[in-house]
Amino acid sequence: MFQGAMYRLFAVLLLCIFSAAQNPKPRARDLGVPFDGTPGTNNAITDVKGVEVGHTTLISGQGKLEVGKGPVRTGVTAIHPRGKQSNDAVFAAWFTLNGNGEMTGTTWVDDSGFLNGPVMITNTHSVGVVRDAVISWKVKHGSPDMEGYWWSLPVVAETWDGYLNDINGFHVKPEDAWHALDTAHSGAVEEGNVGGGTGMICNEFKGGIGTSSRVLEQKSGGYTVGVLVQCNYGSREQLRIAGVNVGREIPEHTVWKNDVGSIIVVVATDAPLIPTQLKRIAKKVSLGLGRDGSYSGDGSGDIFIAFSTANPDADGSKGVRQLSMLPNDSLDAIFLATVQATEEAVINAMVAADTMTGINDHTVIALPHERLREVLKKYNRLAK
Amino acid sequence: MFQGAMYRLFAVLLLCIFSAAQNPKPRARDLGVPFDGTPGTNNAITDVKGVEVGHTTLISGQGKLEVGKGPVRTGVTAIHPRGKQSNDAVFAAWFTLNGNGEMTGTTWVDDSGFLNGPVMITNTHSVGVVRDAVISWKVKHGSPDMEGYWWSLPVVAETWDGYLNDINGFHVKPEDAWHALDTAHSGAVEEGNVGGGTGMICNEFKGGIGTSSRVLEQKSGGYTVGVLVQCNYGSREQLRIAGVNVGREIPEHTVWKNDVGSIIVVVATDAPLIPTQLKRIAKKVSLGLGRDGSYSGDGSGDIFIAFSTANPDADGSKGVRQLSMLPNDSLDAIFLATVQATEEAVINAMVAADTMTGINDHTVIALPHERLREVLKKYNRLAK
Amino acid sequence: MFQGAMYRLFAVLLLCIFSAAQNPKPRARDLGVPFDGTPGTNNAITDVKGVEVGHTTLISGQGKLEVGKGPVRTGVTAIHPRGKQSNDAVFAAWFTLNGNGEMTGTTWVDDSGFLNGPVMITNTHSVGVVRDAVISWKVKHGSPDMEGYWWSLPVVAETWDGYLNDINGFHVKPEDAWHALDTAHSGAVEEGNVGGGTGMICNEFKGGIGTSSRVLEQKSGGYTVGVLVQCNYGSREQLRIAGVNVGREIPEHTVWKNDVGSIIVVVATDAPLIPTQLKRIAKKVSLGLGRDGSYSGDGSGDIFIAFSTANPDADGSKGVRQLSMLPNDSLDAIFLATVQATEEAVINAMVAADTMTGINDHTVIALPHERLREVLKKYNRLAK
Amino acid sequence: MFQGAMYRLFAVLLLCIFSAAQNPKPRARDLGVPFDGTPGTNNAITDVKGVEVGHTTLISGQGKLEVGKGPVRTGVTAIHPRGKQSNDAVFAAWFTLNGNGEMTGTTWVDDSGFLNGPVMITNTHSVGVVRDAVISWKVKHGSPDMEGYWWSLPVVAETWDGYLNDINGFHVKPEDAWHALDTAHSGAVEEGNVGGGTGMICNEFKGGIGTSSRVLEQKSGGYTVGVLVQCNYGSREQLRIAGVNVGREIPEHTVWKNDVGSIIVVVATDAPLIPTQLKRIAKKVSLGLGRDGSYSGDGSGDIFIAFSTANPDADGSKGVRQLSMLPNDSLDAIFLATVQATEEAVINAMVAADTMTGINDHTVIALPHERLREVLKKYNRLAK
Repeated sequence: MFQGAMYRLFAVLLLCIFSAAQNPKPRARDLGVPFDGTPGTNNAITDVKGVEVGHTTLISGQGKLEVGKGPVRTGVTAIHPRGKQSNDAVFAAWFTLNGNGEMTGTTWVDDSGFLNGPVMITNTHSVGVVRDAVISWKVKHGSPDMEGYWWSLPVVAETWDGYLNDINGFHVKPEDAWHALDTAHSGAVEEGNVGGGTGMICNEFKGGIGTSSRVLEQKSGGYTVGVLVQCNYGSREQLRIAGVNVGREIPEHTVWKNDVGSIIVVVATDAPLIPTQLKRIAKKVSLGLGRDGSYSGDGSGDIFIAFSTANPDADGSKGVRQLSMLPNDSLDAIFLATVQATEEAVINAMVAADTMTGINDHTVIALPHERLREVLKKYNRLAK
Repeated sequence: MFQGAMYRLFAVLLLCIFSAAQNPKPRARDLGVPFDGTPGTNNAITDVKGVEVGHTTLISGQGKLEVGKGPVRTGVTAIHPRGKQSNDAVFAAWFTLNGNGEMTGTTWVDDSGFLNGPVMITNTHSVGVVRDAVISWKVKHGSPDMEGYWWSLPVVAETWDGYLNDINGFHVKPEDAWHALDTAHSGAVEEGNVGGGTGMICNEFKGGIGTSSRVLEQKSGGYTVGVLVQCNYGSREQLRIAGVNVGREIPEHTVWKNDVGSIIVVVATDAPLIPTQLKRIAKKVSLGLGRDGSYSGDGSGDIFIAFSTANPDADGSKGVRQLSMLPNDSLDAIFLATVQATEEAVINAMVAADTMTGINDHTVIALPHERLREVLKKYNRLAK
Repeated sequence: MFQGAMYRLFAVLLLCIFSAAQNPKPRARDLGVPFDGTPGTNNAITDVKGVEVGHTTLISGQGKLEVGKGPVRTGVTAIHPRGKQSNDAVFAAWFTLNGNGEMTGTTWVDDSGFLNGPVMITNTHSVGVVRDAVISWKVKHGSPDMEGYWWSLPVVAETWDGYLNDINGFHVKPEDAWHALDTAHSGAVEEGNVGGGTGMICNEFKGGIGTSSRVLEQKSGGYTVGVLVQCNYGSREQLRIAGVNVGREIPEHTVWKNDVGSIIVVVATDAPLIPTQLKRIAKKVSLGLGRDGSYSGDGSGDIFIAFSTANPDADGSKGVRQLSMLPNDSLDAIFLATVQATEEAVINAMVAADTMTGINDHTVIALPHERLREVLKKYNRLAK
Repeated sequence: MFQGAMYRLFAVLLLCIFSAAQNPKPRARDLGVPFDGTPGTNNAITDVKGVEVGHTTLISGQGKLEVGKGPVRTGVTAIHPRGKQSNDAVFAAWFTLNGNGEMTGTTWVDDSGFLNGPVMITNTHSVGVVRDAVISWKVKHGSPDMEGYWWSLPVVAETWDGYLNDINGFHVKPEDAWHALDTAHSGAVEEGNVGGGTGMICNEFKGGIGTSSRVLEQKSGGYTVGVLVQCNYGSREQLRIAGVNVGREIPEHTVWKNDVGSIIVVVATDAPLIPTQLKRIAKKVSLGLGRDGSYSGDGSGDIFIAFSTANPDADGSKGVRQLSMLPNDSLDAIFLATVQATEEAVINAMVAADTMTGINDHTVIALPHERLREVLKKYNRLAK
């Protein structure tokens, strides 16, 4: 069995090298996958001004699982709605499509209508350490009053990486959360096997972090909608890319049979929306996943959060606030952009992720780019 | 049995006459029931500027029930948030404490954040006729575009009056809904056996419509919170008035043993609140009912809606709207006012209602005012 | 302009005749649209044993709209979960994807976990009349106790047919609801321009009623999942059939630009599910609509209800009930079946509907079958 | 200022000693507070068979706050629904009255209908460490399959003790959570300044852990309902005990003016209820708080969870499960018991808690027992 594992590992490493040589990290569009709508500069959640994303990626060890020692394939991703320097909350709302997962801090998002601080994503068994680390990071950077009358209810979500990662070894430490928070930046966002997405699996291909954005036409306000996913859901059998059942055409090296795993989706926009409207945005994420073929299995924690960077200074105790709000009947373009950017962010995650071998030599293959192009061509869907 | 019924009817009539002679419609405060907080001019939901209330009261027949013929003890109550002339929506939200009831139109209240039109309250089996009648009233008064591209999702709620009323006779007609809509007015609100509350029973005393209001201190913004209830819930055993178990001290002439029946609560305020905040207001109504001793039984439809008359012109398709919003940490005074006005409105409903005899000579007694004063005195709670 | 209208009408009539000649009511599968999964005998919601469906279809008049006179293009659809003879409730739950619509009776579905009676679907402005008509039908057929202590909270949903129908003329009468209730039957279900779906528009093709079912493999319990839709949502631009952007390939004769309209989805199963599980089923409907390209626009009332015909006699006051429940981790096959049957039922609605001309000579074309086949062929997706 | 603080501390210590001498831990009933209903043997949540409660109480240091050093006034409370040995889940549901708080694990409670593991309560900033500690405790005691395919979504709730405790010092460690889990026991439950309740404040008296139970009459099934609260909410002004405004009669030594703080309520029952029904139970908790005068201020995290120990072995993947369910119309007695036990558990928490001095010599006085009796007597409410 050891030989078999070594052989498999070797084969996978070859595949990785080959793939790396071929692949200067193209994104799904670069491969000719057709998507609707107009993305922003980076085709990323950071196209929404102010949003910053940081990753801590933890990869070490190989071979047999020894709980507490590794191998380690995990990490933390931090999304700051207004940048790491800001203490200003954003209007927000969230939604659960399937609840086999965790997103902390949501009762106060519901009742206050605000997200106050970053959204963090990590593995299922490290939500706690990341949550408390956000508080200690805030204590260090924030400004509670003199006597410490101050509390925080961080938003931390997760997906499960225990097929590749020593998840019960609790390898994520407070420092890892702080690093993601401190190194978050605007501009292009690293995708694939990074941050919280390091050890994730999507439609039985290697998954992880993916992102995409849409810029609305001026007649619709010219707003930007950005989506970031930590993608760990789905079955090969159901995967659709641009409407094509790609998964069935690439049936090799599947991982399991059910739609286990989960997906966390973060939607950002600069459109002036109130929480009631953001709740609707969060719900529409489901439709993007529907386009990609998801049926959101019992084991899935499909939890989505949406926020608006408009209305700075809306939170707080400084007297009656003045707000802007887009009328409800102007939301269609934003709904559609949310669906489109979700649809694409998932595919981007798979396209960016590299084949990975983790605990007990479990290997999950990357979505093979050339095969994807062939399948799209077969169904007359190759864009270029 | 007929003789028994006649005798009971006679006794009740005597009681009515006696009660009427004694009682130029005092309200709970007039009887010395102590309540916290400062009510508005009319101690009514109409203290919130713009709010108008109209009732259609249907009382006819007596004796044995003949379905379709009577006796009739029912009606319709209409609450216009901005007056009957206005087509301007208000921000709104709703909440169900116990769902054995109906409030139509709520999915769009949830998703739009707006209440567009009146809140109507009637009996359980007349919700439909009232709902469609609101649409036809709007068609008559409203302004759909030329080709009729226009739809409406009226908010109509109910409680069950079948102990006194021929509810399966469907005696409420479209004209009755229109009359309530057309005769709605500001100023003092009729309470007790009127409108939708005509045949209702509250804590096994005669119930119906009740209302109350609170005016906040200037340091809390000086806003007004008004509450109107259609009160049909509760058991005698559990009734608390000003914290005193009044029901147990007046155990005669109970109606049934369980907490059947329901309560619809409408909360109005001129404080600038967004729907997320109004949802919280709607939830707090529960605490006012808790003070009155409710345990919200299985048979109860305890459904609450809250709206804010601030932010005129927030709805519609006229470009980005400018809103005002009270900060979340200024909501406490409004929460407390909601609880207090709910607590009082329920008692006002019982104090205002007169003993009524309906189908099959069923009789429900009014809360006897002098007895109430005696009980409060016994527990050192009589305010005057 | 009159000439233009006549010409358009003429063209459309030709199209109708042509279409009728070609079309002995094939369903989407008959046209070669590929769908996953195994349907039941009738590929209909009635494949779930006990479920009966009845339609009242109201078509009369033509030409210019005179409110109250017509033209009339509307109706009522009734779905009895256990057949019209049964008074036995079913476990149920519901979900709103976009709330610009109505489904009455839902607070009690939420709190009781039961659907007690039929699900009715009609046009937006006739919900009330149908609701009260269900009560009067129940009064006639049901068994309230002697003194009439009995109430009912019917479930009635709607979509808006005012583009083709004189919706403000209120043409649906109690008798129309009764007729749908009384003529409901098992077996094949009429689709397209029937019942509540008569005047509906789906992705800017003629829509209406559609249905589909799936039978699970024996290893998954062999249960049946059936779906019925009243389909009135969507934009041509977004329509996907079997993953293909069919709408963009058939761009002629669109109706409007936005995703107005709505969709009501009813999911039935004989799998033993409790309400918590049915809530999850109701949510998964979104993923089926996602596959068809929906983005669930602001004007859409996308409301879904799911029920289980297992656990007869679970409701009532007859002592502790004994129930069966499928484990949560056996739900995947049912989730997937729900997504698949929803995906197909929408397409079936469009395939079955015929071109219709309604008020003011508004015409909505049927999805042209041959064109659909050509498009599927172009994208290598034609099944036969 | 130092002198002043010393003097205050001294006064408080005297008060403590005096109070301890007077007080062999009577409970509210022992003091003559009248409550309705019949409690179980211990008048505690543990009267529900199987339920075990454990506390870790952390008290150290005094004087000026040095973040990270103390003073420490905090802890952890663990509630095992079926005892610490069991891996069997219970049906559960939860509800938020006011969301300024945290309860992790709730999306899966919602969707699965199960609580799988203990409910933990601690301070706001230690939720994370306790959450992950539950997972590591489960890993140690549980049985994931060989390759570690196993995940956990612990339920951990909190209230804020930063007025007395060095909350930003993060003094709760994994060992503290394990200790509470391991030492949990049936029988009498420690109340007041223990476990997660150690540093809590309730209606501006010292609060903490409180518990109560009700045993239903045999005609209602003879079931037991138990409640445990971690009580940290409320203002002195609003406090009602047995309907009497006790807070206003004991106005000395208040802490702040607003209803800050929070309350976590855990409801247990052995009645066979499904999650839909437990959701209703969780909502009724609000009515118990209403009786105690709460208005659930903006700063409050009022989050409730209810579970049923009936239906062992309902969870899992072992084929169709057989369940028992109480009919909805038998729930009234359970609703009322929930309201009553909540009402009493809050008062029990205050009665049991001793005066405490914490960071920066902040002191919160215990509810003075004799004064309470005097006030009850004044309002003719003293039971003995």
